[in-house]
Amino acid sequence: MTYSKKIQSLLKREKIKLYDLIEVSSKNFKVKGYLMPRTEGDPNTLVLKLENGYNIGIKPDSVKRLGSMKREKLPKIKFAKDPKKKNVVLLAAGGTIASRIDYRTGAVKPAITPEEILSFTPRINDVANISIKILFQMLSECMTPHHWALIAKGVRDAINEGADGVVVLHGTDTLGYSAAYLSFALQNLPIPVVFVGAQRSPDRASCDAHMNILCAVKAATSDIAEVMVCMHEDLNDNSCALHQGNRVRKCHTSRRDAFKSIGVKPFARVKYPSLELEILRNDYARVDKTRKLIFKNKVCDKVAIIKTFPGLKSDIIKSLIKNKYQGLVIEGTGLGHFPIKSYDKFSKENEENFMALKRFAKRGIIFMASQTIWGRINMNVYETGRDLVNIGVLGNLLDMIPETAYVKLVWALGNSKTLEDAKKLMSTNIAGEFTERSLF
Amino acid sequence: MTYSKKIQSLLKREKIKLYDLIEVSSKNFKVKGYLMPRTEGDPNTLVLKLENGYNIGIKPDSVKRLGSMKREKLPKIKFAKDPKKKNVVLLAAGGTIASRIDYRTGAVKPAITPEEILSFTPRINDVANISIKILFQMLSECMTPHHWALIAKGVRDAINEGADGVVVLHGTDTLGYSAAYLSFALQNLPIPVVFVGAQRSPDRASCDAHMNILCAVKAATSDIAEVMVCMHEDLNDNSCALHQGNRVRKCHTSRRDAFKSIGVKPFARVKYPSLELEILRNDYARVDKTRKLIFKNKVCDKVAIIKTFPGLKSDIIKSLIKNKYQGLVIEGTGLGHFPIKSYDKFSKENEENFMALKRFAKRGIIFMASQTIWGRINMNVYETGRDLVNIGVLGNLLDMIPETAYVKLVWALGNSKTLEDAKKLMSTNIAGEFTERSLF
Repeated sequence: MTYSKKIQSLLKREKIKLYDLIEVSSKNFKVKGYLMPRTEGDPNTLVLKLENGYNIGIKPDSVKRLGSMKREKLPKIKFAKDPKKKNVVLLAAGGTIASRIDYRTGAVKPAITPEEILSFTPRINDVANISIKILFQMLSECMTPHHWALIAKGVRDAINEGADGVVVLHGTDTLGYSAAYLSFALQNLPIPVVFVGAQRSPDRASCDAHMNILCAVKAATSDIAEVMVCMHEDLNDNSCALHQGNRVRKCHTSRRDAFKSIGVKPFARVKYPSLELEILRNDYARVDKTRKLIFKNKVCDKVAIIKTFPGLKSDIIKSLIKNKYQGLVIEGTGLGHFPIKSYDKFSKENEENFMALKRFAKRGIIFMASQTIWGRINMNVYETGRDLVNIGVLGNLLDMIPETAYVKLVWALGNSKTLEDAKKLMSTNIAGEFTERSLF
Repeated sequence: MTYSKKIQSLLKREKIKLYDLIEVSSKNFKVKGYLMPRTEGDPNTLVLKLENGYNIGIKPDSVKRLGSMKREKLPKIKFAKDPKKKNVVLLAAGGTIASRIDYRTGAVKPAITPEEILSFTPRINDVANISIKILFQMLSECMTPHHWALIAKGVRDAINEGADGVVVLHGTDTLGYSAAYLSFALQNLPIPVVFVGAQRSPDRASCDAHMNILCAVKAATSDIAEVMVCMHEDLNDNSCALHQGNRVRKCHTSRRDAFKSIGVKPFARVKYPSLELEILRNDYARVDKTRKLIFKNKVCDKVAIIKTFPGLKSDIIKSLIKNKYQGLVIEGTGLGHFPIKSYDKFSKENEENFMALKRFAKRGIIFMASQTIWGRINMNVYETGRDLVNIGVLGNLLDMIPETAYVKLVWALGNSKTLEDAKKLMSTNIAGEFTERSLF
């Protein structure tokens, strides 16, 4: 979609091209901004990107060209290494936190240099000696388990090179999945590993990148040798929460406090701007740089997670069997249920679901989690739960959240020689991924 | 799995059969209960169902038979019709709320008579004249869209027969899906329609069925002519919340207050035991028995909901195309994203995802919702979102929750002649399923 002929001739007359800086006048106001393409809506309305990063639509009376867009240059800052400070490695793995506006499309693109990260958060150098390594640059929704393995390797290398803490800059969309993976791939962790992201891009006034990174670097110098996620605790700028990496979930599309611990408290909070650490739980491993890391970063990419819904038919499971999937996590309903029983002509297809699951379980592994997100699996209460257990669907993940169940199965199948070994790994509490008793 | 030979011979000696009432003695205590089959765990441990409905495992020193199990008979109670009271129809559609322990397997089965419902909640007759109709008896995870259509028809019939309010007894696993469907199938509703369930079965001391039904009947006599869900508001027995039927979700496997309104407040609360109604919002339709119901209860059963995850491959979407699905709701990440872009050899498969979605969108409808559950879709912020919009993935469901998006697409495709008509229905706010501005 493009602008109307009327708008196009107006722009042509003023020699204005897309992405030029222009001034638009209408009856009551004037506004400056960059001309954006029209992707939807009224073709007679101009779309301008304002300096604060927001887009607005305006019906113009007149327009004037002010100049072309220049990519802002940030000053290069160099930091001296202070032997009294801890050494924290920042690993950049893409995402909004390491991104800029793409002035070609007006959308946010992952691309940033180490200098840029340091220049928009210079205070991190007061907290620790910082070094930065770019692992890859991509939007986190496009990451795969192989990228988790690369992040794990990056953290292991940093540990081997003597880092006191590692911060992973990551897109928020799948940040919880990656953090969960590292909690399994890096066992016996000697130092803190802190994932951090930003919900608002750096071109917006409400950007949370600066505060989140600063709190994450602080967390990386703490005594908590766990895989953590550091994000805004609430809508105020007073603290970041340090969530347990495998029990945290992005629970809002846009809020800065989108990440919530599920069924447990966060390990701690970092207050802002004081950067004071307030411990909220005591069941964490303490930093011990002599502790020997156990490193298992293989993955199995024949694993899927399927959400059940009323009307689910067997074709989906059958396609997984046909394509030789080895692992399946069901995001079932309630205590861990799946539509498998026929009561009437309308529910006859459920019998096919039952047979398909039975076939899958004969040569692969099926684990049950719940789409309720909160609460514990219990497949012994209802008859359909028991029927599922009888054909081999495993219901012993307790309160493991569905996303972590998927990640752990990718990891367990990748790092086991037999299905039985993978089942044993799944049933072992490796990094607090299930709890003896849910808090909520 | 069965008991060990040792246990079996002990039971045989005492002439004890499965489901008999027995007394088990061990070193420190004696306990009475019904002998249950061993389905998992240590075969030397007896499983007893106690009177409170819980199962326990005991290693027995000695056992004694006390008797056989008798199915408890409930007294039949008849109620007189009072012309001063409103007439409320209870439609039973299965679930825990209308269930009993199955003494064959020890699991909960859906099966109850109208007399039983009345006898365990006799006080409902003080609130309204009650009549009961059994629509079907099944566990709600096995229901399909065709069952939603049956419930809609049952409610329409009750309205045509002059009911002042309808209460639908329903299993909690998929209760939110069914309530959402009725909010679309029954437009211009003249009276309240209240879904109610129970999280704990009637054989347990903590059963919430009694209080929930009583509050639901009260809600059915109110002035709120909307499709609602009535469940415990918190862990106290002080109130039930009346949630908007298409913005509510089961958010815990077992808690009695598992149902939460997403992004909106509940319409009202019913206090317990006073049954006083406290209104929390004013944007509801008032009861008007002259209002003409619009009834559209068709469904399309070629719709699926797919949750995205890192490592998702195109075979799942391709199988939907092959099986001629017409509608797809993507439970994407963040603001509405899907793994479609390749950055390196590990993410090459994402290009296949993109092509598969493009093919699906050419002959079907794809809508985007978010697995974050809370928050609004916005596919214009990131480049992958824009790429999806360009191939026809529709991102205009705003803050509609994924389950409601699925239900509405089943309904919209079922009640439209063309795909374009279905898209229009999806974009029309029919029953408050999306909001202009999210509360949370």
